Amino acid sequence: MDSLSSLVNALRCLPGVGPKSAQRMVYHLLHNHRENGVHLATCLQNAMEITKNCIHCNNYTDHETCKLCQDTSRERQTLCVVESPSDIAAIEQSNAYSGSYFVLMGKISPLDGLGPEDIGLPKLQQTIIKNGVQELIIALSPSIEGQTTIHFIQELLKPHDVRISQLAHGIPSGGELEFLDGTTISTAVKNRALIA
Amino acid sequence: MDSLSSLVNALRCLPGVGPKSAQRMVYHLLHNHRENGVHLATCLQNAMEITKNCIHCNNYTDHETCKLCQDTSRERQTLCVVESPSDIAAIEQSNAYSGSYFVLMGKISPLDGLGPEDIGLPKLQQTIIKNGVQELIIALSPSIEGQTTIHFIQELLKPHDVRISQLAHGIPSGGELEFLDGTTISTAVKNRALIA
Repeated sequence: MDSLSSLVNALRCLPGVGPKSAQRMVYHLLHNHRENGVHLATCLQNAMEITKNCIHCNNYTDHETCKLCQDTSRERQTLCVVESPSDIAAIEQSNAYSGSYFVLMGKISPLDGLGPEDIGLPKLQQTIIKNGVQELIIALSPSIEGQTTIHFIQELLKPHDVRISQLAHGIPSGGELEFLDGTTISTAVKNRALIA
Repeated sequence: MDSLSSLVNALRCLPGVGPKSAQRMVYHLLHNHRENGVHLATCLQNAMEITKNCIHCNNYTDHETCKLCQDTSRERQTLCVVESPSDIAAIEQSNAYSGSYFVLMGKISPLDGLGPEDIGLPKLQQTIIKNGVQELIIALSPSIEGQTTIHFIQELLKPHDVRISQLAHGIPSGGELEFLDGTTISTAVKNRALIA
């Protein structure tokens, strides 16, 4: 296979890239944007080799400790539990949270053989004790595995004096009722807030 | 900037990739698909370095001569002129053509300082003479620059005994009249074909 076809195939490992758009990308790079292609190759190689998980919170970082764990202005008594580093990026973009994070290495799933140890719950417990965490905010998706994981965390923290909360569920900002699914609306009705 | 952010930025050189999808791609690769990322980096590096233009037709190739020019079963007396190597890929996918190709290095555009020599028309003329081309199929986009280029090619070939044709313009396959633009429909009316 020639180098052009190999590149078209390799690009398809990216989410949302099909054969047509992969081909379009390759011709775009080959035609007058080769230096961008070479730069992209270098950045890819670097990121795949250098990026590791933070020893404290499992977030992605180039060093031992991630930027957020190094930042002394972040509150250590509030800890937000997320499923993946990309969730941290999303919450950070909202500018609504100034506490610290902990990334689980997956969700508890007996069918896949993933128990509390596999997703790092003992490390979470240690972090809570070490940092004197007073509130744990759970930001996991409300799937069956997510619910199981939340249940395990609650059991784990029973001996400790830690408040546990989870992100509010309801109508998203800008969401129009007619386009929302039934589960979201029923949750929003159940969790309705008194305003007068 | 850390390697993750550099990669997000670098991915944006790909057509159709914005900040959100670049971020999604990076997290997808870092999470369990690192070997794909490394493979993609290698393919990118290779393609950007190795891919060059065929000495005969300007198509992309890893070697001196492209696969199509090496293929002795292709007719040499029919030559199709296209704007870019990606057009060759598109025509090849249609399986409707068994002649050879010639890729122009752009279109004639006096405003951009691109004359007949810059886009390789002398080489096209040599190829036509050398291969004894009998029909030249012009597959250029019907823009102003395209029309100018077609005009130049016609002038160039006046001394030679070569038929010149261009791809038919009209309703695309599966095109619904109500969604087609006025120019396409007016061309289709003008070029209507007698069927009885």
